[in-house]
Amino acid sequence: MKTLIVISHPDIENSNTQQFLLQGAKHQNVDTLHLDNYSFNSQANQQSDLEKYDRIIFQFPLYWYSAPYSLKKWIDEVFTRGFVYGSESKLIGKEFGIVVSTGMPEKNFAVGGGDGYSIDQIMTPYYALARRAGMQILPTLKVFQFYNMSEREHMNLLVDYQRYITQKYPDTLENKIEWFINQFDEQVDEFDNSEPVKNLLEDLGIELDTLKLTVEDIKNGGDSNE
Amino acid sequence: MKTLIVISHPDIENSNTQQFLLQGAKHQNVDTLHLDNYSFNSQANQQSDLEKYDRIIFQFPLYWYSAPYSLKKWIDEVFTRGFVYGSESKLIGKEFGIVVSTGMPEKNFAVGGGDGYSIDQIMTPYYALARRAGMQILPTLKVFQFYNMSEREHMNLLVDYQRYITQKYPDTLENKIEWFINQFDEQVDEFDNSEPVKNLLEDLGIELDTLKLTVEDIKNGGDSNE
Repeated sequence: MKTLIVISHPDIENSNTQQFLLQGAKHQNVDTLHLDNYSFNSQANQQSDLEKYDRIIFQFPLYWYSAPYSLKKWIDEVFTRGFVYGSESKLIGKEFGIVVSTGMPEKNFAVGGGDGYSIDQIMTPYYALARRAGMQILPTLKVFQFYNMSEREHMNLLVDYQRYITQKYPDTLENKIEWFINQFDEQVDEFDNSEPVKNLLEDLGIELDTLKLTVEDIKNGGDSNE
Repeated sequence: MKTLIVISHPDIENSNTQQFLLQGAKHQNVDTLHLDNYSFNSQANQQSDLEKYDRIIFQFPLYWYSAPYSLKKWIDEVFTRGFVYGSESKLIGKEFGIVVSTGMPEKNFAVGGGDGYSIDQIMTPYYALARRAGMQILPTLKVFQFYNMSEREHMNLLVDYQRYITQKYPDTLENKIEWFINQFDEQVDEFDNSEPVKNLLEDLGIELDTLKLTVEDIKNGGDSNE
């Protein structure tokens, strides 16, 4: 599976959140496309580039309840009617995700809260676009108040983000475990001492030793869900 | 009351809908600001300009479920936190409206329809912004398939649009009548023979003669609702 992360941020070098996420993406096999200060050769090239990917993720900070304008500029230019519309859509069946960060707390995004609408309500235009293109929509990954997170929360976010960009969906226990196995294979030395992995396993309610046994089972052709 | 219409359209000269609406705005006492090919002197100037108005309307065609990117670019640049945020907002109490046109039919914008979401759901980011700024949100004026409308529908749209940009809200019978009286005063010669006025009165279920009597009543200090 090949993932493209389309990033809209006018000042990405000074964004702690974006730099943190980019760091997380580094060891995963994904491509990134930073839209600001970026000019593409031709609409056709850009379109055929997109066709190569199985998962396309829009990643941005929330600026007045949508992405910074560079994302819409790119959409207006690249997403021609012929490219994404109806049964001719070149994006049919691909997965679509959003990674959105905001300095506001989660509780604001509710009826009666400071912002009054949920993140999902605010993201509607992107969901409608993905739906029109025949893409499969993944649950949006929301990052609230990155600057306020504990070290542990940051580490959990890192794993959640890495899973978001490369794990098979839906986000079932089985797919989570499969993802960990892949990570295990690739980073066997770091696995035992990885704080984020431990945290995530704790959240999943799985002991590391159990996971190792499960991994053995799966490798031997067993079913981890039994 | 002073209205500003902020228009986002990359090819406004060739848009029948926008040219038609601009024609309708011409005889109303409103200002327009076309964002494409437009560069403003300074953020501060632009902000103090906005403060002069009582009603601010975003007008645009639906491009992939939001305005063309020029509107977001302008919002990102002009709507600074200090300008629109919280109790310090300079826009508190002002009215906010949207005039959005689309080539798709109305039936598409529903669960199970071609676009799957209502126009109101799609407009959420703008409503959230207006809400955050403490503005009062008017019901969005939606223009579906302008090219497909009959002459009569065009004329009704013209009056609806003119009312939208200058009539007092909420859109009660009383406020409608008051608006007609103002138009009557200003365009007394055209009033009797105006097709759009006749159409609208018919839709309101009011005879022109009745309206004239009502106008007389109101002018003499009577109450049109009794």
